[in-house]
Amino acid sequence: MDVIKVSATSRSTSVAGAVAGVIREQGHAEVQAIGASAVNQAVKAIAIAHGYLKLDNIDIVCVPSFTEVTIDGQERTAIRISVEKR
Amino acid sequence: MDVIKVSATSRSTSVAGAVAGVIREQGHAEVQAIGASAVNQAVKAIAIAHGYLKLDNIDIVCVPSFTEVTIDGQERTAIRISVEKR
Repeated sequence: MDVIKVSATSRSTSVAGAVAGVIREQGHAEVQAIGASAVNQAVKAIAIAHGYLKLDNIDIVCVPSFTEVTIDGQERTAIRISVEKR
Repeated sequence: MDVIKVSATSRSTSVAGAVAGVIREQGHAEVQAIGASAVNQAVKAIAIAHGYLKLDNIDIVCVPSFTEVTIDGQERTAIRISVEKR
């Protein structure tokens, strides 16, 4: 499954649309963010996607976890948020 | 129900302990944060609490939403994260 990568400059409504689309198609999405601003955008996006999907009678929940990623040879701790149908 | 308020300077492990305690007692916790740093601490805390509660065979999921709060007479948009047993 592709991971939806969110940055500090991601628009939360765009990410929300992506999350809602993946949930509709696959029932499960993975969102990844590194750093406080990106995590904040990701959480806002999931809150917005929750509203979008409610209109389709789809209820989502999420589970955050830590994951290690390597960027430019450096190990960083990312937040991975698994989004799934309830 | 009391809301667990998270600030930018909250220690995520302390918040995680609070979340795990409330979940064990009541099966449901509400976490509130304003601003990117506070939201990041809240999400990290929930990820840590997920690990704590797994040891008790309790699996949690969360649902973020927006809420308006008034602080010093000013209206602010907070992120409210509902944490519940799966």
